[in-house]
Amino acid sequence: MHKTILAQIDSPKALRRLKTGDLPDLALELRDFIIDIVSTKEGHLGASLGVVELTIAIHYIFDTPNDKLIWDVGHQAYGHKILTGRKSIFDTNRQLGGISGFPKRSESEYDAFGTGHSSTSISAILGMAIASGIKGDTERQHIAVIGDASIASGMAFEALNHLGSTKANVLVILNDNAIGIDPSVGALKKYLTNVKKGTAKEENIFECLNLNYTGPVDGHDLPLLLKELERLKSVKGPKLLHVITTKGKGLQSAEDDQVVYHAPGKFNKSTGELQAKTDTDQPAKYQDVFGHTLVELAEKNKKITGITPAMPTGSSLKYMMAKMPDRAFDVGIAEQHAVTLAAGMAAEGLMPFCTIYSTFLQRAYDQVIHDVALQNLPVIFCLDRAGIVGQDGATHHGVYDMAYLRCIPNLVIFAPMNETELRNIMYTAQLGLSHPIAIRYPRGQGVQVHWKSPFDRIEIGSSRELRKGSKIAILSIGHIGNTVAEVIEEFSNDQIGHYDMRFVKPLDKKNLYTIFENYEYVLSIEDGCKAGGFGSAVLEFANETAHANKLVIMGIDDLFLEHGTVQELHRLAKIDAASLKTRIKILLDS
Amino acid sequence: MHKTILAQIDSPKALRRLKTGDLPDLALELRDFIIDIVSTKEGHLGASLGVVELTIAIHYIFDTPNDKLIWDVGHQAYGHKILTGRKSIFDTNRQLGGISGFPKRSESEYDAFGTGHSSTSISAILGMAIASGIKGDTERQHIAVIGDASIASGMAFEALNHLGSTKANVLVILNDNAIGIDPSVGALKKYLTNVKKGTAKEENIFECLNLNYTGPVDGHDLPLLLKELERLKSVKGPKLLHVITTKGKGLQSAEDDQVVYHAPGKFNKSTGELQAKTDTDQPAKYQDVFGHTLVELAEKNKKITGITPAMPTGSSLKYMMAKMPDRAFDVGIAEQHAVTLAAGMAAEGLMPFCTIYSTFLQRAYDQVIHDVALQNLPVIFCLDRAGIVGQDGATHHGVYDMAYLRCIPNLVIFAPMNETELRNIMYTAQLGLSHPIAIRYPRGQGVQVHWKSPFDRIEIGSSRELRKGSKIAILSIGHIGNTVAEVIEEFSNDQIGHYDMRFVKPLDKKNLYTIFENYEYVLSIEDGCKAGGFGSAVLEFANETAHANKLVIMGIDDLFLEHGTVQELHRLAKIDAASLKTRIKILLDS
Repeated sequence: MHKTILAQIDSPKALRRLKTGDLPDLALELRDFIIDIVSTKEGHLGASLGVVELTIAIHYIFDTPNDKLIWDVGHQAYGHKILTGRKSIFDTNRQLGGISGFPKRSESEYDAFGTGHSSTSISAILGMAIASGIKGDTERQHIAVIGDASIASGMAFEALNHLGSTKANVLVILNDNAIGIDPSVGALKKYLTNVKKGTAKEENIFECLNLNYTGPVDGHDLPLLLKELERLKSVKGPKLLHVITTKGKGLQSAEDDQVVYHAPGKFNKSTGELQAKTDTDQPAKYQDVFGHTLVELAEKNKKITGITPAMPTGSSLKYMMAKMPDRAFDVGIAEQHAVTLAAGMAAEGLMPFCTIYSTFLQRAYDQVIHDVALQNLPVIFCLDRAGIVGQDGATHHGVYDMAYLRCIPNLVIFAPMNETELRNIMYTAQLGLSHPIAIRYPRGQGVQVHWKSPFDRIEIGSSRELRKGSKIAILSIGHIGNTVAEVIEEFSNDQIGHYDMRFVKPLDKKNLYTIFENYEYVLSIEDGCKAGGFGSAVLEFANETAHANKLVIMGIDDLFLEHGTVQELHRLAKIDAASLKTRIKILLDS
Repeated sequence: MHKTILAQIDSPKALRRLKTGDLPDLALELRDFIIDIVSTKEGHLGASLGVVELTIAIHYIFDTPNDKLIWDVGHQAYGHKILTGRKSIFDTNRQLGGISGFPKRSESEYDAFGTGHSSTSISAILGMAIASGIKGDTERQHIAVIGDASIASGMAFEALNHLGSTKANVLVILNDNAIGIDPSVGALKKYLTNVKKGTAKEENIFECLNLNYTGPVDGHDLPLLLKELERLKSVKGPKLLHVITTKGKGLQSAEDDQVVYHAPGKFNKSTGELQAKTDTDQPAKYQDVFGHTLVELAEKNKKITGITPAMPTGSSLKYMMAKMPDRAFDVGIAEQHAVTLAAGMAAEGLMPFCTIYSTFLQRAYDQVIHDVALQNLPVIFCLDRAGIVGQDGATHHGVYDMAYLRCIPNLVIFAPMNETELRNIMYTAQLGLSHPIAIRYPRGQGVQVHWKSPFDRIEIGSSRELRKGSKIAILSIGHIGNTVAEVIEEFSNDQIGHYDMRFVKPLDKKNLYTIFENYEYVLSIEDGCKAGGFGSAVLEFANETAHANKLVIMGIDDLFLEHGTVQELHRLAKIDAASLKTRIKILLDS
């Protein structure tokens, strides 16, 4: 019996031909299929396991893709992908050339809207519902599935506030599992808990916003879901169905440790046991260096606080949160609030370390300009997952930060080449800065196994000469400097100099001047976009100082990079060792 | 009696020495003082008139500046400025070298946090309250005053959601006048109306978020305000006082026409009568050209929609909203939602014109990247008030947009030099684009009295040669090209060429190549920041194509410009006619 129902389903149309009695078995098979693949190919696990019944019910009741369906964030869309014609290629998930780990318009007509960053689904589905209205299509259904962590983000509230004042035919399904990547936080979460316990008072917060509210209902009860969705199909206007699910449902270890099994890496599909990490003699992750160093500094400096918008585990702020819960804060998916909260703290003399993934700082761009930089408040931004991030792909690469931050007055921008540099700039920042600073570092491992060195102060705006040369000066910024060091080792050639520039802003103009005077060629390399980035800053300097040396700028071209391993994508972006070698050879030969 | 109480008040300390019986008279005098000055010096009127009693009550009850007070947005802080030692210089409001129109930390210790953009106050005050907690100060009070339009913005919701889960000693005062600059919108506004009418059900939306709620109370009833504030002083933890006020209170015309009297220009202080505009033979404002042209196009093209986040009057979307209410939307102070709503519409084949002030698009930066550009959805952004905006000052200049947008793949960026160009690019965009586009234009008048010309299609990525020269090529982008045209008229010299580049992206590389080949010098000029801006794009092009011509980049240096007239600030920024003339002379002589 098993494996036979799912095998027949190559589209929601086929799904809708099943009898309702077959659906619970399909749910079992779909869950197994997801566990099967993710256990060996890796990816996001818990979120998709939690919505298996919901996914089946939605496609069974609604006329997708004519009816529009948006999965907020999109981690939870694996079941959706499998049921909408991508079963046979699901094992390519997140791989170079394979399907994306998130819904993607160009991948399937069933992916009505690409997601990746949270809390966009209600805005997008309302736009689509308004479009249906303008086109005179009054029958089309518009569904957004959004988690309780995502709905607490400001953008989702803005959308609900608009939605509740319209007559748009929108169904918001609140997938409430009380957890995002880490457990949900905030007053709304407590409120939702009260709703579930039945202790919330008469008028529901969603009813306050003029939404027709149903719930809470058990999101693993397929017959109940089918009944409610069928009923809601004929309810006009904006409505919200509150569904309670268990993240990781169906795999005991994933239910028991929901944070780890959000994206567990490889695991034993029967027992759930994680594949042991093989080598303990590897360099640490930048994240861990950040997390432990922050604790180390905060133990001595009582002014230090820590802030993360919903990434305590990912960023490693969890270490400080565990040790100093009164000084370290997970504010939920609320980047805007996180930044201005930090500004408020800095205005009162604290030293907030605000750690945000580079791609998510885009959500708080105005707050960086208007609340932090304009007031010149010395907030310390730790921009995690800067540069190419790998398999999360286009929605998550942190490749614009140097360009979008460089134009902001008062802001210092630093990128550490290794763990020691990260520690030293964190140490320097908490000694007291006269400006805010953004410290950008990549996802994953650095280069030092023994990174816990004594602290040294770094002079703001100073670069490091790593190797003196005569003809070509290579200017690197951040971790990619290790690629440079590796490559130039291969040229036993004293013509090549290497400078770890450290600061995108302020540039070390004194050293740069000397470099442009003494070298024939200058080559800059960065793990970021070329347009307006670090190389562009160097070029502006050269132009201002009337240096006409040939300058080669290596960085990411003006296009969105997809998913793949970091190594693969560096190669595609032509910022890998081989590409650098080629550029150096050309310059040496010219 | 009149004019005698206010005359004694040089600080809140002096205010607190008054008897409570004197406060209503002080309110009358303060109102008169504000009307007096604003009627001749211009500025924001209605918001400050509405909070006269509240301002007096807060400073009377609380121990400012030890207690922390933040005015959200800050339009309404004139009374606060006058009572906190700035009465004698209040007539310099918004003038070059004078006081800012918004609260500003560097101006007064009573301005606990600088504001200008909305909805930041709760985040900042919570940061300060947490700082007080960490410092062990349990007595300090922390107050944020926020309007009903601002509290509906996502960022404020994020802050409330965090606040409600803490024990922080924060008082949020909701100043509910049912209007921002334009009337408030959205489900929350309707809900607040129900609260006022007493038809809302038992549990309040703010109580759902775990705030201790009081209200609604009459915000013009001084004794009542004093009583409530005194009581709330001893209520620990997060709390919200809901105050009902009338925007423009005390000046009949301002109460009657709250939109116009938000910032009415000069007026008769007794009658409220607006000073007549002198000259009807002036060029139109870009805003009006946008607003009327959009209606003209939308009447023929049914796919066009319009979206503004809370600026229907300022942007002139009001014309389309009046004529086509089903296709033009004011979504409230919700830039993030506005952009992704537009993306949802574009995904369904509509042609959304999303008009947002340049400075406020910073609030939706991630949505432009992640929801629009990554999916390559042809949303048409109309970036109003791009460049230096004048008296609103540092918080409002729209000078970063070219830099922060230029690094985004897929995005087209255009700046019209005049009204015809704006009309033609709008016309072109709605013919169908294969990419999203951002059209940036300044606040205020263009250069054409008769702007309603027939439409012409503009080729994407094409520039215009306005004058052919031989030695110096001047590349201008947008409206500042008119300064160039004016200046080069004075040089009766065929050495100077002038090119209206139109597109920041894609650059007209073909023409640029020819220019770099044929001219000795190139000068670029923009009403935007130099770091990473338009000139930087030209420089990147020159570097890629190995052109070593001297390139002079004129733009705004890496600092925050303050307030003053646009002319004054262009001069300060050295992008005015005189500065250009000097640069040209130097090049001609070299």
